[in-house]
Amino acid sequence: MANLELEPNLVLPIHENLGKFFHRVRKRTVDICRPLQKEDFVAQPVVDVSPPKWHLAHTTWFFETFVLLPNRANYRVYDQDFGYLFNSYYNHVGERVLRHERGKLTRPTIDEVMAYRAYVDEALAEFLANAELTSQVQEVLTLGLHHEMQHQELLMTDIKYIFGHNPIHPVYDANCLVDNFKNSHSPGWVSIDEGVYDIGFSGDGFHFDNELGRHKQYIHQVQLATNLVTWGEYIEFIEDGGYEKFEFWLDEGWAWIKDSGVNAPMYAQKKNGVWGRYTLAGWQAIDPESVLVHVSYYEAEAFANWKGLRLPTEFEWEVASEHFDWGFVWEWTQSAYSAYPGFKKAKGALGEYNGKFMVNQMVLRGGSKATSLGHSRKSYRNFFHPHLQWQFAGIRLAK
Amino acid sequence: MANLELEPNLVLPIHENLGKFFHRVRKRTVDICRPLQKEDFVAQPVVDVSPPKWHLAHTTWFFETFVLLPNRANYRVYDQDFGYLFNSYYNHVGERVLRHERGKLTRPTIDEVMAYRAYVDEALAEFLANAELTSQVQEVLTLGLHHEMQHQELLMTDIKYIFGHNPIHPVYDANCLVDNFKNSHSPGWVSIDEGVYDIGFSGDGFHFDNELGRHKQYIHQVQLATNLVTWGEYIEFIEDGGYEKFEFWLDEGWAWIKDSGVNAPMYAQKKNGVWGRYTLAGWQAIDPESVLVHVSYYEAEAFANWKGLRLPTEFEWEVASEHFDWGFVWEWTQSAYSAYPGFKKAKGALGEYNGKFMVNQMVLRGGSKATSLGHSRKSYRNFFHPHLQWQFAGIRLAK
Amino acid sequence: MANLELEPNLVLPIHENLGKFFHRVRKRTVDICRPLQKEDFVAQPVVDVSPPKWHLAHTTWFFETFVLLPNRANYRVYDQDFGYLFNSYYNHVGERVLRHERGKLTRPTIDEVMAYRAYVDEALAEFLANAELTSQVQEVLTLGLHHEMQHQELLMTDIKYIFGHNPIHPVYDANCLVDNFKNSHSPGWVSIDEGVYDIGFSGDGFHFDNELGRHKQYIHQVQLATNLVTWGEYIEFIEDGGYEKFEFWLDEGWAWIKDSGVNAPMYAQKKNGVWGRYTLAGWQAIDPESVLVHVSYYEAEAFANWKGLRLPTEFEWEVASEHFDWGFVWEWTQSAYSAYPGFKKAKGALGEYNGKFMVNQMVLRGGSKATSLGHSRKSYRNFFHPHLQWQFAGIRLAK
Amino acid sequence: MANLELEPNLVLPIHENLGKFFHRVRKRTVDICRPLQKEDFVAQPVVDVSPPKWHLAHTTWFFETFVLLPNRANYRVYDQDFGYLFNSYYNHVGERVLRHERGKLTRPTIDEVMAYRAYVDEALAEFLANAELTSQVQEVLTLGLHHEMQHQELLMTDIKYIFGHNPIHPVYDANCLVDNFKNSHSPGWVSIDEGVYDIGFSGDGFHFDNELGRHKQYIHQVQLATNLVTWGEYIEFIEDGGYEKFEFWLDEGWAWIKDSGVNAPMYAQKKNGVWGRYTLAGWQAIDPESVLVHVSYYEAEAFANWKGLRLPTEFEWEVASEHFDWGFVWEWTQSAYSAYPGFKKAKGALGEYNGKFMVNQMVLRGGSKATSLGHSRKSYRNFFHPHLQWQFAGIRLAK
Repeated sequence: MANLELEPNLVLPIHENLGKFFHRVRKRTVDICRPLQKEDFVAQPVVDVSPPKWHLAHTTWFFETFVLLPNRANYRVYDQDFGYLFNSYYNHVGERVLRHERGKLTRPTIDEVMAYRAYVDEALAEFLANAELTSQVQEVLTLGLHHEMQHQELLMTDIKYIFGHNPIHPVYDANCLVDNFKNSHSPGWVSIDEGVYDIGFSGDGFHFDNELGRHKQYIHQVQLATNLVTWGEYIEFIEDGGYEKFEFWLDEGWAWIKDSGVNAPMYAQKKNGVWGRYTLAGWQAIDPESVLVHVSYYEAEAFANWKGLRLPTEFEWEVASEHFDWGFVWEWTQSAYSAYPGFKKAKGALGEYNGKFMVNQMVLRGGSKATSLGHSRKSYRNFFHPHLQWQFAGIRLAK
Repeated sequence: MANLELEPNLVLPIHENLGKFFHRVRKRTVDICRPLQKEDFVAQPVVDVSPPKWHLAHTTWFFETFVLLPNRANYRVYDQDFGYLFNSYYNHVGERVLRHERGKLTRPTIDEVMAYRAYVDEALAEFLANAELTSQVQEVLTLGLHHEMQHQELLMTDIKYIFGHNPIHPVYDANCLVDNFKNSHSPGWVSIDEGVYDIGFSGDGFHFDNELGRHKQYIHQVQLATNLVTWGEYIEFIEDGGYEKFEFWLDEGWAWIKDSGVNAPMYAQKKNGVWGRYTLAGWQAIDPESVLVHVSYYEAEAFANWKGLRLPTEFEWEVASEHFDWGFVWEWTQSAYSAYPGFKKAKGALGEYNGKFMVNQMVLRGGSKATSLGHSRKSYRNFFHPHLQWQFAGIRLAK
Repeated sequence: MANLELEPNLVLPIHENLGKFFHRVRKRTVDICRPLQKEDFVAQPVVDVSPPKWHLAHTTWFFETFVLLPNRANYRVYDQDFGYLFNSYYNHVGERVLRHERGKLTRPTIDEVMAYRAYVDEALAEFLANAELTSQVQEVLTLGLHHEMQHQELLMTDIKYIFGHNPIHPVYDANCLVDNFKNSHSPGWVSIDEGVYDIGFSGDGFHFDNELGRHKQYIHQVQLATNLVTWGEYIEFIEDGGYEKFEFWLDEGWAWIKDSGVNAPMYAQKKNGVWGRYTLAGWQAIDPESVLVHVSYYEAEAFANWKGLRLPTEFEWEVASEHFDWGFVWEWTQSAYSAYPGFKKAKGALGEYNGKFMVNQMVLRGGSKATSLGHSRKSYRNFFHPHLQWQFAGIRLAK
Repeated sequence: MANLELEPNLVLPIHENLGKFFHRVRKRTVDICRPLQKEDFVAQPVVDVSPPKWHLAHTTWFFETFVLLPNRANYRVYDQDFGYLFNSYYNHVGERVLRHERGKLTRPTIDEVMAYRAYVDEALAEFLANAELTSQVQEVLTLGLHHEMQHQELLMTDIKYIFGHNPIHPVYDANCLVDNFKNSHSPGWVSIDEGVYDIGFSGDGFHFDNELGRHKQYIHQVQLATNLVTWGEYIEFIEDGGYEKFEFWLDEGWAWIKDSGVNAPMYAQKKNGVWGRYTLAGWQAIDPESVLVHVSYYEAEAFANWKGLRLPTEFEWEVASEHFDWGFVWEWTQSAYSAYPGFKKAKGALGEYNGKFMVNQMVLRGGSKATSLGHSRKSYRNFFHPHLQWQFAGIRLAK
């Protein structure tokens, strides 16, 4: 995310210089919030979007709860109430503010949250400087950093939601290019030969539990586009009446557009005959060659039907990804999110990280320009409900 | 509201020194917000509660739209978007942000809203200093000031809601007595003789359209309590199983407590065997002699049934009010809010002020300690839906 | 309801020939159902509408529970389950099938319900023939008969709902005139002089508790129309854009038409440029001179505003009713349903009859052609929520 | 379904004696309804459950619309309204009664629906006797018969729902064993070797489009239980607090039991310390050795977690099914319902049969005792939303 002038060499060897890694990740979260006013930290416009303040505190709570508290002798919890306020969904760790209530909390203020961050950061820095870290602690700490990198992307999506739904369209950063760019290639197709492939994480770097269970998948002959679908192509679909023709849509997708009134990707609208969209750099006329972003699975699937093509499976994507560039937008696959053979969830609270969401969600692969450097890899499995548009998600076609 | 150290002599002769009156009312709105942090201005925890920022802007928009724009030559609107953002419910004035969306707007910031206030205040001060005011302008201006005084009370109730529903219970003002005080009298009853009485506003001061149509009502023999119901009495009702016995409740009241899970007035809770409540001065053990506040009509009605008594009608209240002190809490009456004989709503947007709400709401009479001085009178008709607890409303019994 | 060929002399002296009265009322309920097929007895298309089978059983359950069981020695309950199935809303009498679940019960069949009626009727006939009735028993029995007459009208409204919402519009009775007739007078106005009037039931006939507390009301000079509003007049309102102009509507009325999509009285629709409506005699083109029926309070109030007039209060109606014909449609008044001075609800289950509904409902006066003979009187207070259209309700204007 | 004394030899060679096949299938639908009273044909207690009358008419409408109308010269539609009334979800065929409105239609009566069946059956019999059937017509006709067999099972589930939710628990058939039986084997495990397997329909019999795209799947070493989970095992899970321990549940499963209050399989309840359940033969104490039925996917998944095991994938199931008995209850798999490689949906209305449901549903394999003979095969893919309990669905474990 060059526009934020973050250091490019964020990808450090895991377990090698954890202190430096920790410092950089934590700093970047704060950097992302630099353009915000205090008021911007409070809002939760829909249940899926958390207040920026909450992200800042919750990621801190993670380190306090899972690293400092169990491992640091005499660690004094910053504030007893914060566990209740900033736990996200870990049932193991006790009662918490309900998700949809987060936007009601005007206190603690952002200044207090920043003080909380400073307190925990200092304690952790000391801890890292002085303790001999067990591998278990190293793992939790690394998980915490990747957890925070996930929240960095969520921060971006949530800030965009808050600004993009304000009728006066505040600008986040006039030079931001996170959601406005073009394909770098000329169009083409990548072919995968039929056969058995190994799928899932291998190697010894960081990874989530849901990537494990490296296993074999039989893949049939398939071609994936080297380029992502553009706004120009998608607007053609819209102007062809795509949102009015049930035959392109899944039954639940059709119900979704009828109930919600959605008739375009999020943030896009035709005004006075011109298609425009809200980007983090403000409201802009749409460049037809720019890459489509902010579609739901339902829209991605309908668009592919309209084209007479389909979305790739997550396995096809993983195999083909060696042969094209990715990391611009999250790419919807036609694979429902489920366990790999041999998947085992971790014991205790951290076991709630991934496994319990394995129903009714679709896998996205790749990563977006809002994804933190060092946080994406070809085996990474992102997942969202099929109606959600607010992520930086787009379409790659298969045939 | 002495605790805010507001000037006591707020009640000015209407139309006499409008400029001074204007200045004081506007200043007091800002004074009420003095204990707030910037974050506190943003939240809308439920649809009934508006963000403090919105109150500050909306009351300003009222003067800009109804006074400056039509009457001041060459007046330049501060920001074209603000009409859309800060119109409350005036259909005549055009499109507006839906009520439940107010909490999503983090911009304009509170600093920008204060700049808007300053701009309009200055324009109005100049206007008042230099123009010969027609009586029509004087009337709209006075209405605007009373409108703002209404919002001052709503500000207090909304701030209390925002703080009182935060699990860490922020203190608004440690010396605040707005919602914590006792009856000043020894208990007793005021008798009204049967006969015909004149009801409604008379005189030439300020009043709302819904008080007009002064007319006759036949009132039968009745007695009203000189004192308000206390927390001690109400807790007796609770401890007697009041919330578990359907026979005391209106059918819709019973459904309301079953559906909502309400089992006490708002902000009150029994913890570890002790009844406490959130007040603007923070969480406190309940003093049984303090005056009950934050009950819904359903609760008021059920409590009266349990006592074997009833609530007064608004007409009984108006006649009897000469003989007891009032102005501590709003007092639920058993009268549904409806038009007096001969009620006429004003033409245009200002006609939407009162008349269109005359269904499904109950009248409250009197005023609370959060009511602005100069804003209450015995003919004043406040009204709310019967399930709402968040107002400073209590109970006076009749028999 | 002449078209059903019911005996016209149903109005018997109360307490004088209870056995004969009982027989006639019970028979008429069954007569109303004569045109139904077995399937028609089951449906509950919306929560407000009960299955006809349920009415037949519930009215029977009333006599079994409140007359036979407490008074008849050795009375054997027909079926222990029926108390649960056919209690309507009497919390005193225990658990019951939730109102919106009534349409799920295909058993007991209508034949079984008719056998239940026969069993209870026979037991009651014997009881009436042989017992010396205390005045308390006479009162409950009479209440039961008036209760059943109320359900007779509800049966008619519910049957109309079931048929009228079926796209194939079954005919109830091709000769039925209950909902299709004209004003019998030439238009005019009845004047009431200002003064104090006595309101509420007087005399010694049957009446409900909510009519009691005869008391004085001061009424100001008013005129009521001798005729009811016609379809022609109301269609003029519609065609003038009445449903698109917020200024005629209560705020909640406006929200109601926006949310529900209602744009005409129930059962009426413009097809191919012609206004038609479903009547119990089938679908018909609307005769503009026929009397309007099936409007909600919101519509009645908006129509009156459009006319520059208003609805009468229930007190004005009661006084003026001596001077015009009524009993054709229920007439919405602008009075919210509340207790008369001195209202006392009865002890026990029968005390749940009226008092617990005294909030958020509007009073209707008069009676409709579906109202059972002997069941209406000028002091009778009917009441419904302001959005309901499915009753036989229309409009009389006041000025 | 022996208890209904249906002919056992229902499995005819496809396309060989279509007339006889047609007659038998159509007759069986009617036979299933033999124990019903007329009232039972009307109810739609929840949106998922259709009135039996609707099934009878809808399956008839299918033949009229897709076979007779396009292929039979001079065919006269039985009733123009029926297309609107009895279309299920085929957008291609035009407007239709919304699904949740089906229970509101008391007319046409069941007698009229049976007359409609007779009319269409006769026309079809004539058509089959005299026409030279194109292969396209044969296919649609065969699809219609399998469609009707699907509705036969839905009829059973819906009848059970209607009876099972009636507090008086009507008996469908005192000898019915469809939902009450034991495993026929001693417990054991079937092992599948790792390797590539062919999945999907092969052969030339009837099949649905979603079974096509026969393709290869790589399957890892796995064992499937030869027996189905019993009520005894599941009650152990309940009594161990299974419904109170979040750690066994998917996040949405946990939310589902909290919101719905579900704490046991559908139709099962502990009364006075004894577990009983409603079966089609009436209310019965639960035999712990009988096979569990009426669980949702959420419950199946949670139970497997509690056991430390998992559910099979649909591919594992298909391969292993050669080695155990199945066809007793539908068996939840952990596979989300999605397209096989190369899946193509048919053109026009019949293309809406399967493909448009490929999101948010889980695959069930096998068949239940309520499944029509000749309608199940090992490649058959049934699918339901993960919260639905009303199907005859149970659990087979894998490890």
